[in-house]
Amino acid sequence: MTDMPNRVEIHEEGPREGFQIEPGPISTADKIRLVEALADTGLHHIQVCSFVNPRVVPAWADAEAVVAGFKAKPDVHYSALWFNENGLNRALAFKDKLTISGSISLAASDAFTHKNLNRGHAENLDAMRKQTAAHQKNGVAVERIGVMAAFGCNYQGDIAPAQVVSVIEDGFKIADEAGATITTLSLADTMGWATPSRIDRVVGAVRSRWPDYQISLHLHDTRGQAVANAYTALRMGVSRFDSTVGGLGGCPYAGQKGAAGNICTEELVLLCEEEGIATGVNLDALIEVGRLAETIVGHVLPGELIHAGSLDAFRRKAH
Amino acid sequence: MTDMPNRVEIHEEGPREGFQIEPGPISTADKIRLVEALADTGLHHIQVCSFVNPRVVPAWADAEAVVAGFKAKPDVHYSALWFNENGLNRALAFKDKLTISGSISLAASDAFTHKNLNRGHAENLDAMRKQTAAHQKNGVAVERIGVMAAFGCNYQGDIAPAQVVSVIEDGFKIADEAGATITTLSLADTMGWATPSRIDRVVGAVRSRWPDYQISLHLHDTRGQAVANAYTALRMGVSRFDSTVGGLGGCPYAGQKGAAGNICTEELVLLCEEEGIATGVNLDALIEVGRLAETIVGHVLPGELIHAGSLDAFRRKAH
Repeated sequence: MTDMPNRVEIHEEGPREGFQIEPGPISTADKIRLVEALADTGLHHIQVCSFVNPRVVPAWADAEAVVAGFKAKPDVHYSALWFNENGLNRALAFKDKLTISGSISLAASDAFTHKNLNRGHAENLDAMRKQTAAHQKNGVAVERIGVMAAFGCNYQGDIAPAQVVSVIEDGFKIADEAGATITTLSLADTMGWATPSRIDRVVGAVRSRWPDYQISLHLHDTRGQAVANAYTALRMGVSRFDSTVGGLGGCPYAGQKGAAGNICTEELVLLCEEEGIATGVNLDALIEVGRLAETIVGHVLPGELIHAGSLDAFRRKAH
Repeated sequence: MTDMPNRVEIHEEGPREGFQIEPGPISTADKIRLVEALADTGLHHIQVCSFVNPRVVPAWADAEAVVAGFKAKPDVHYSALWFNENGLNRALAFKDKLTISGSISLAASDAFTHKNLNRGHAENLDAMRKQTAAHQKNGVAVERIGVMAAFGCNYQGDIAPAQVVSVIEDGFKIADEAGATITTLSLADTMGWATPSRIDRVVGAVRSRWPDYQISLHLHDTRGQAVANAYTALRMGVSRFDSTVGGLGGCPYAGQKGAAGNICTEELVLLCEEEGIATGVNLDALIEVGRLAETIVGHVLPGELIHAGSLDAFRRKAH
């Protein structure tokens, strides 16, 4: 017996994760094309861009143009990412088009926090306190605590589940002080350390401590284990996942050139649908968008279904 | 609770599966280099070549030269593949160097049998009857029944578990008539149709019918589900897998250009070792062989660990 959900909520992050790491300049028109194509597949949550410093991430210098440019569908939630009040303000300029909510973003590895943000956990807590206040000042709900490197770290090695719990506790302190109501705990396998038993232990520890909160997983396929990890999480009843079409993306700070990106949306959808879990996504349409993504970035993407096709496509031909 | 084994037996098929499908000519010396490098990683079962018609598979015209050329290690079993008595006789010329045993090789999909072998199931049974007799005449034990397309078929669609059971029964009839003692039932996901619940149903049906036989899985990663499928099988106690270093290979008859090959040995070893299942393989050494395989074939292979490295490599750096 498992706790397999009937339905999962997939948060597509291909445009944001993918275009930030791609070497070639991608045109604003192509970014818009990908966002609009994704929205036509049945995906209801699409992260469209990062509002970050264009000197640090030049690939997102056109974030405003992308958000202004795409034609929004009424039943799709479009979101964006930001790391400070300036980014939040840029997002708020599009509050009629974007779904804007805040996160308290922490990492279970101090070594990663130093490498990624050039500050320690304590300083990061201060920054998150300020950011939470900035969100609330602007009337933006802070609903999520996110933990990066929750399953292990290239710089720190293994991460104990108790460490993940402790970091989330720090996040709740910030939320409680600010009067924010957290609904979702997001665990990120930023550098591809998760394996099925590690999913079991970390998700288990977090759920035992906070049984009433939604758990969301952000998995990377760095070592080829992402689909097995998602399956393990599904068996535990986890029903919210981030993923990227074609497996776009990767972590620019993980120190692994050429490493794979996020779990591929097509492979996650195939897994869910074949296991009887509804995704709302038309897989064949999504595979076409994966092919579009490959054309846009100009190189082969790791998503296998781009090349193999869905099972349903072959079922139709067989009958 | 699961039936997870303490140890798995991995049958490395990279040289045989990989070199048969690679477009570029691969030198005999490089084939030998790969076989010898694999034997240094702790792998105990390596399939080194195919004794097939060189007009059909020109890439294996040098099968004899490869087998004659590699330096054998005493604790490693080297095997080969063949499809008829001529191939068997070519293998028997190396009976002091190769581990030679026979298979009754069938397919659960009649459409696939037609496409792959240009004959139907009944004709294939006749051919297998003759081949079994040829093996026994030569003193070669026939120990294995193999079922291709056991989880689904690009030409026939879904395959019922009862169909797989029926095909294995046909195989047992041949074995019984010939007085052969079967020990292993090998289920191949030739075209990447398996998903966790399908593994569960097919392996479950076969094991219920023949509880005392070893089950071996030959998984392909065509749709990115191979590691999740292996994990599901491990939980059911399956302890023998075929795999290929770097994910070399693929099925030339599957009608999917560019589709991924077999489950990658490195990813399978990582999964097992992190779950506490012994493989006997030095993963870091194996990753180096994956890099060698990439150099030999001259293009990027799907195995993620070639680019990401093992967890242990990062653990050592972190401490």
